[in-house]
Amino acid sequence: MPKIIDYKNGDQMSLEAVIKKSDYRLAKNGKNFLSLVFEDKSGQIPGKFWDASEDDARRFKVGTVVQLDGKRDIYQGKPQVIINHLGPLDSNTVDMSQFIQTAPIKRLDMENEFEDIFLEITNGAWNRVVRYLFKKYHDQFFTSAAAKVNHHDFQGGLAYHTLSMVHLAEKIADQYPQIDKALLIAGACLHDLGKTIELSGTLDVEYTFEGNMLGHITIIDEEIVKAAQELKIDLDSEDMVMLRHMVLSHHGFLEYGSPERPKLLEAEVLHDIDVLDASINMISKALDKTEKGKFSERIFGMDNRAFYKH
Amino acid sequence: MPKIIDYKNGDQMSLEAVIKKSDYRLAKNGKNFLSLVFEDKSGQIPGKFWDASEDDARRFKVGTVVQLDGKRDIYQGKPQVIINHLGPLDSNTVDMSQFIQTAPIKRLDMENEFEDIFLEITNGAWNRVVRYLFKKYHDQFFTSAAAKVNHHDFQGGLAYHTLSMVHLAEKIADQYPQIDKALLIAGACLHDLGKTIELSGTLDVEYTFEGNMLGHITIIDEEIVKAAQELKIDLDSEDMVMLRHMVLSHHGFLEYGSPERPKLLEAEVLHDIDVLDASINMISKALDKTEKGKFSERIFGMDNRAFYKH
Amino acid sequence: MPKIIDYKNGDQMSLEAVIKKSDYRLAKNGKNFLSLVFEDKSGQIPGKFWDASEDDARRFKVGTVVQLDGKRDIYQGKPQVIINHLGPLDSNTVDMSQFIQTAPIKRLDMENEFEDIFLEITNGAWNRVVRYLFKKYHDQFFTSAAAKVNHHDFQGGLAYHTLSMVHLAEKIADQYPQIDKALLIAGACLHDLGKTIELSGTLDVEYTFEGNMLGHITIIDEEIVKAAQELKIDLDSEDMVMLRHMVLSHHGFLEYGSPERPKLLEAEVLHDIDVLDASINMISKALDKTEKGKFSERIFGMDNRAFYKH
Amino acid sequence: MPKIIDYKNGDQMSLEAVIKKSDYRLAKNGKNFLSLVFEDKSGQIPGKFWDASEDDARRFKVGTVVQLDGKRDIYQGKPQVIINHLGPLDSNTVDMSQFIQTAPIKRLDMENEFEDIFLEITNGAWNRVVRYLFKKYHDQFFTSAAAKVNHHDFQGGLAYHTLSMVHLAEKIADQYPQIDKALLIAGACLHDLGKTIELSGTLDVEYTFEGNMLGHITIIDEEIVKAAQELKIDLDSEDMVMLRHMVLSHHGFLEYGSPERPKLLEAEVLHDIDVLDASINMISKALDKTEKGKFSERIFGMDNRAFYKH
Amino acid sequence: MPKIIDYKNGDQMSLEAVIKKSDYRLAKNGKNFLSLVFEDKSGQIPGKFWDASEDDARRFKVGTVVQLDGKRDIYQGKPQVIINHLGPLDSNTVDMSQFIQTAPIKRLDMENEFEDIFLEITNGAWNRVVRYLFKKYHDQFFTSAAAKVNHHDFQGGLAYHTLSMVHLAEKIADQYPQIDKALLIAGACLHDLGKTIELSGTLDVEYTFEGNMLGHITIIDEEIVKAAQELKIDLDSEDMVMLRHMVLSHHGFLEYGSPERPKLLEAEVLHDIDVLDASINMISKALDKTEKGKFSERIFGMDNRAFYKH
Amino acid sequence: MPKIIDYKNGDQMSLEAVIKKSDYRLAKNGKNFLSLVFEDKSGQIPGKFWDASEDDARRFKVGTVVQLDGKRDIYQGKPQVIINHLGPLDSNTVDMSQFIQTAPIKRLDMENEFEDIFLEITNGAWNRVVRYLFKKYHDQFFTSAAAKVNHHDFQGGLAYHTLSMVHLAEKIADQYPQIDKALLIAGACLHDLGKTIELSGTLDVEYTFEGNMLGHITIIDEEIVKAAQELKIDLDSEDMVMLRHMVLSHHGFLEYGSPERPKLLEAEVLHDIDVLDASINMISKALDKTEKGKFSERIFGMDNRAFYKH
Repeated sequence: MPKIIDYKNGDQMSLEAVIKKSDYRLAKNGKNFLSLVFEDKSGQIPGKFWDASEDDARRFKVGTVVQLDGKRDIYQGKPQVIINHLGPLDSNTVDMSQFIQTAPIKRLDMENEFEDIFLEITNGAWNRVVRYLFKKYHDQFFTSAAAKVNHHDFQGGLAYHTLSMVHLAEKIADQYPQIDKALLIAGACLHDLGKTIELSGTLDVEYTFEGNMLGHITIIDEEIVKAAQELKIDLDSEDMVMLRHMVLSHHGFLEYGSPERPKLLEAEVLHDIDVLDASINMISKALDKTEKGKFSERIFGMDNRAFYKH
Repeated sequence: MPKIIDYKNGDQMSLEAVIKKSDYRLAKNGKNFLSLVFEDKSGQIPGKFWDASEDDARRFKVGTVVQLDGKRDIYQGKPQVIINHLGPLDSNTVDMSQFIQTAPIKRLDMENEFEDIFLEITNGAWNRVVRYLFKKYHDQFFTSAAAKVNHHDFQGGLAYHTLSMVHLAEKIADQYPQIDKALLIAGACLHDLGKTIELSGTLDVEYTFEGNMLGHITIIDEEIVKAAQELKIDLDSEDMVMLRHMVLSHHGFLEYGSPERPKLLEAEVLHDIDVLDASINMISKALDKTEKGKFSERIFGMDNRAFYKH
Repeated sequence: MPKIIDYKNGDQMSLEAVIKKSDYRLAKNGKNFLSLVFEDKSGQIPGKFWDASEDDARRFKVGTVVQLDGKRDIYQGKPQVIINHLGPLDSNTVDMSQFIQTAPIKRLDMENEFEDIFLEITNGAWNRVVRYLFKKYHDQFFTSAAAKVNHHDFQGGLAYHTLSMVHLAEKIADQYPQIDKALLIAGACLHDLGKTIELSGTLDVEYTFEGNMLGHITIIDEEIVKAAQELKIDLDSEDMVMLRHMVLSHHGFLEYGSPERPKLLEAEVLHDIDVLDASINMISKALDKTEKGKFSERIFGMDNRAFYKH
Repeated sequence: MPKIIDYKNGDQMSLEAVIKKSDYRLAKNGKNFLSLVFEDKSGQIPGKFWDASEDDARRFKVGTVVQLDGKRDIYQGKPQVIINHLGPLDSNTVDMSQFIQTAPIKRLDMENEFEDIFLEITNGAWNRVVRYLFKKYHDQFFTSAAAKVNHHDFQGGLAYHTLSMVHLAEKIADQYPQIDKALLIAGACLHDLGKTIELSGTLDVEYTFEGNMLGHITIIDEEIVKAAQELKIDLDSEDMVMLRHMVLSHHGFLEYGSPERPKLLEAEVLHDIDVLDASINMISKALDKTEKGKFSERIFGMDNRAFYKH
Repeated sequence: MPKIIDYKNGDQMSLEAVIKKSDYRLAKNGKNFLSLVFEDKSGQIPGKFWDASEDDARRFKVGTVVQLDGKRDIYQGKPQVIINHLGPLDSNTVDMSQFIQTAPIKRLDMENEFEDIFLEITNGAWNRVVRYLFKKYHDQFFTSAAAKVNHHDFQGGLAYHTLSMVHLAEKIADQYPQIDKALLIAGACLHDLGKTIELSGTLDVEYTFEGNMLGHITIIDEEIVKAAQELKIDLDSEDMVMLRHMVLSHHGFLEYGSPERPKLLEAEVLHDIDVLDASINMISKALDKTEKGKFSERIFGMDNRAFYKH
Repeated sequence: MPKIIDYKNGDQMSLEAVIKKSDYRLAKNGKNFLSLVFEDKSGQIPGKFWDASEDDARRFKVGTVVQLDGKRDIYQGKPQVIINHLGPLDSNTVDMSQFIQTAPIKRLDMENEFEDIFLEITNGAWNRVVRYLFKKYHDQFFTSAAAKVNHHDFQGGLAYHTLSMVHLAEKIADQYPQIDKALLIAGACLHDLGKTIELSGTLDVEYTFEGNMLGHITIIDEEIVKAAQELKIDLDSEDMVMLRHMVLSHHGFLEYGSPERPKLLEAEVLHDIDVLDASINMISKALDKTEKGKFSERIFGMDNRAFYKH
């Protein structure tokens, strides 16, 4: 099937894509139109759907997969598609993963893996808090992106990033026996769970009001506090203070938004493997789009460095 | 009455002072002794009380006011007192404010002032949360210092600093009507309340375990969350998110430990008046000890600057 | 009366506005035109006046209020007006404050307020220097903006910002009796007076040559030196050195252009209230243009933060 | 066997220790003495050996294990031992690891492990360079410390740190198949090998002249260049440029002494696991000396943070 | 002869210029074209050469001087030339220096000057290494630019910058006799020689693969190492370590890419005169394009400052 | 003649030295003493002169050269001399330069050199201002140090540093003809002249009140303003604004206390040669005390680097 990237200027396009953005607007000629952005795995292209009824606005909302026919053109220096025909595909038969990036592991498999992982959290308080919060935010956790841009910015990205970190945590705790494996894994499980509340949407990710004003670190701390109260776990216990410290300090530095720097061996390691997994994801994403023997585009989240593909 | 600072090396000392530190230890000769630090408003001097019984350790604990007789000496380059006699004074008749710095306003007067202040918090949710937490930590709030060192580092310092800030807040909100006075005052009341849990002791101030691992900003946020649950106030309401944002952002910058920078006009002002009152307190404290026409000692909390006394 | 912001693309515009910029140029077709920018309180829009004579260039200079008729269009992605008719209004009957932002207090009222303020400067040397310089730069002070962009960037902004700071100074000096009120107010009066020389123009503000090469802090210091010579006040006296230190250090940090950091309690406070008043002005200006429940545009002078309007 | 730390002031000491520093000097009374520092795993203590002959200076040189008898005393505020008797032990029967920290794995075992590791470097050029340089600096590599202070500052520390990093590299390359395992392991093997030339001594580690003027990063780059010439490997090949980039960039940031920041996925990962292994080593070393439920001493290499032992 | 800058929009252009960039592309209408950039000393202008054959692509490659006839137009807000006729000039009769900036001294004169300079390097090892490397990279050294942008970014710029620095070095060494003149001059000669390998092209300068991955500092260090081996000079000698230190540290600060900061008086001076000559070059280049009494454009390499032309 | 550095602990000292500090104090035994510091070119040693009369305090004031006899001892870990006899030498016959560092050029020679230099300042306004201020502060200029610590911290250091910079300025202006030599030299002459007012004393250098509160940059700017008024030179002229800019900007960066960064080619060069001459002086001073083949002590003013003596 042809992809957005395959067409050149002036070409007739005919392909399937998902609607990434959809705004219903009034043109200066008094007519309504939909300002759309189409996306498949190869890239994005905007287009206007003219004389749109309110019904059209409902049919072509964010997340709808469509058959798109039109002509590729340049407008104000940027590519757009002049739409000839637009038809929604049946959402039941569509395989979303053909259009947008998703986690390379199936949701069900990830859910099963986490069930096994919880068994490794051998401390009762930590285990109960983790299970409680994974149950409370189950759906959001397995569908959210891990970030608005930068790393793991796709559906299921949060769960996939968390899973990768747990795998690193297991291996590192095995290599260095002085590390409390249960604490490290509990911290890894919870560290970014506040993003389910900080961000909204999986295709068109935005910050929520709470996300903007409190941040995901404070949000997950609040959730742990409320979970402990619900579960009647003593918040003043060393265990609970340490678990909260793990998530509070996981950005590593005050200037990155952690109100405390790591003061536990496990908290330092948690920060390090968060950086490691996020870096590998960002670099790999950029290299995937790079030709062998060339440098990638500059990566914002990696201090604007370009990486070499060999 | 003579003060610690009045004595020179070799002098016989005879004065009243408060015990600031007290450690019960075993000397290399097998005997027990108390390692003490005496303090009055003029300064401090350490001394050892030899052949101390466990009973002595109980009699001469931190906060006890004593009649001290001994000889001022130099040991390893620093002054100490060789104790001849040490006798506890009757704590009922002693006026503590003669020995240690205290707030220049009486506790009772401060308590009454805060009762009036609460009336200015005209938003129901904020008013109830502030009253609830002031009731919960009433005693600690009126006896705590506002810091281990730096500004308002004395008994009642936390309440006095908070009161000064509220007075600034009232005047500034009156001058700029676009400021939400109730929000600014509610934020000022709560901003440092977490220090009642972050720090312990009023004479010999130390960080608690929670203080070290979570910090006073996260601690007060936890307290607001628990108060809202107790009072059945919706934590997701704009009012509660804004109140929490006020305390979370009051350090102004991420690198000073706030997980979010101010994003409300009132939050920015709260940060500014916190800095203003703390700076005036630190500079004034240093200038009080400086001769007219001279520069003060360098002030650590003011980027090590010396200030001129005119 | 309709405002610039009220018109959409393709609309016929008919409104009154002031000319903010006016450049007389030669087009590639050999004809002259005026490149104009129109402004009212709702915003700005550029437009070209074709076949302009030199006489037109004189009639439509910066500051002229005009009746503007034309069509709103988009050119190279930005709005412009295609002018049909342009007619100057009678400058005698026009109320400028309807077109450009001005201080919310009338100039005469501000002048009277400053007369009262001078009475609070009870030190003879400071009082005479302040009065001398306010007389010397009287007109410029009451018409200048306080900055090219950022805060109080409007006609009379300098006087209004100075007045707000004096009001803060009065209240703070009353709350903290250790502050020398006369010194703080004298410093507040003079702190930005050098901007009358650093900047030129009130509508189309630019840096002067002296402003660019010396900066307003050095310029006001020079003015104080010359005033003292004129008034036969001893420049080596503690009073004069302290007054100069107040203005030299009011940016607070070397990296913000102060050659000395504050070394007087009053100098530290002056810096703090300068920041406070400027911040409140910048945030309020942005929030005025923001819908309730939304975040403002990012504010350059506030480290690019967006603020929430509640 | 009693340790240095077991003795209190005034105690008679009798123990075995290794000589960590030894300086032959002339006292003001015209007599020679040895200024010694004794060390066992519990700590250090200095002492003077009076009336020392040149023969004594030879007998009691750095690295000698001795039977030490004397009295613990305080001199200028610090503990020292007044030596009664000092006798060298037979170096053939002494188990050095009882006196100084050494790698927790035996040298022979490490040597064997590296033989296996080389098999994983499946690129011919890299494999030959690594083998060549490990052969050239074989002894130094297995006896050097990895640093003068901070992390892995003990005999064999360089090899042990390198080995730990290789183990991390293997696991991470297995988890992320996009990583070139051979390149990552080759980089890990060589990254700190220049320290064999940058530092001298294993007990009393100092910077060499080359170390001071060139630094270990430039030194290992030079070694790779010379190795390639010796082995007739093309220095301009992509393989050799990438290998050199791995070691040049492994400090991650210019301000930490890398002349280039990482521009290969493998180079970024190499930097991350260097930080990870060094951090774990530094924190663990500090926690080993800390009581449960207390904070460690502040760790210089970890931005002066104290870590909590749970 | 008319220059690019002399033409206004709509003018017929007729002038001689050099081709600075040349890309052979396929238009959406299926025809081939050359995307060209023309340059003379007054500036640049792009233009498209339509229906270009592969032969045209060879005739109009980078560096060709052409007779250009066409019309100046605006496309997407930027000037371009609509080409009517394009004819290559005879490269044998063309004086390149009329079209592109070149060093103000002729290459032959510079070559002779360097011959004299080598005589001042009175240390045998340094003299031989410098002569060896100047011979090895003779042509590149005298044709390279000293940078991609910023200072001395023209053909021969590297040699001219080096020569200016040597002249400064001579004068400073004469004024301060404690400076080792031979070392300072040897360091100046070699400091940027690695740029002959780091950069490619003289008109359209780009980083090479080695340049990107190793940087010119490491590259010249490698060259010195190889030269010493070739010349059988002891790399461990103080002389060679010092020479390498000179080039390694000449950026002065780690964050500017030097792996070591200067630790020799001569290395500190070398860094200072590098900054001095580069600054004078950048400022002078900007002032050359500035009218008297105006400020220049902002200079990127001078922290974005504008300089005043008097 | 023996020097301070030649004596070891316990030795009888007998030498000539200058008194660097002298404080008259009351001991705890009720007797007066002089707390003295003696200095010769080899170093310093403190000592107490017991039972000192007020007459003794006058005889042994700062700057007196004395015959000192006593015993070298250690007190609280630092060397001191126990004075047996102290006798003032005849100030008329004493050669001060044998005891304290002075400029390596005689004052008279420097005065003559400056007379020649003034001839190079070919701009009338600059020439008159420079001559006026050199006359006004003639004695102070030729006796002051250039700094309290760091570079040129000796009698005549200010004149010597200024002279060195002028020599650099002459050579650089000759090499780069685009530099306005007269402006550069005028700026060099005046740049540090404010230090004659900022600092007091030549042996025991301290900041004055004006120095502390205004800084030497603002002080020299004030002096130029007053000179221009005295000489009836127009302060608003381009010439005077540029001259003031030269001295205002010579620290190069705001964070080093310049209220403006250099915006003239000549101002940038002035800053660079100030850094160059100061660096050479600081490094040379440290290397003078260093053995060949060793590293110097760390130099505070050079970011704490140690330099290698070859």
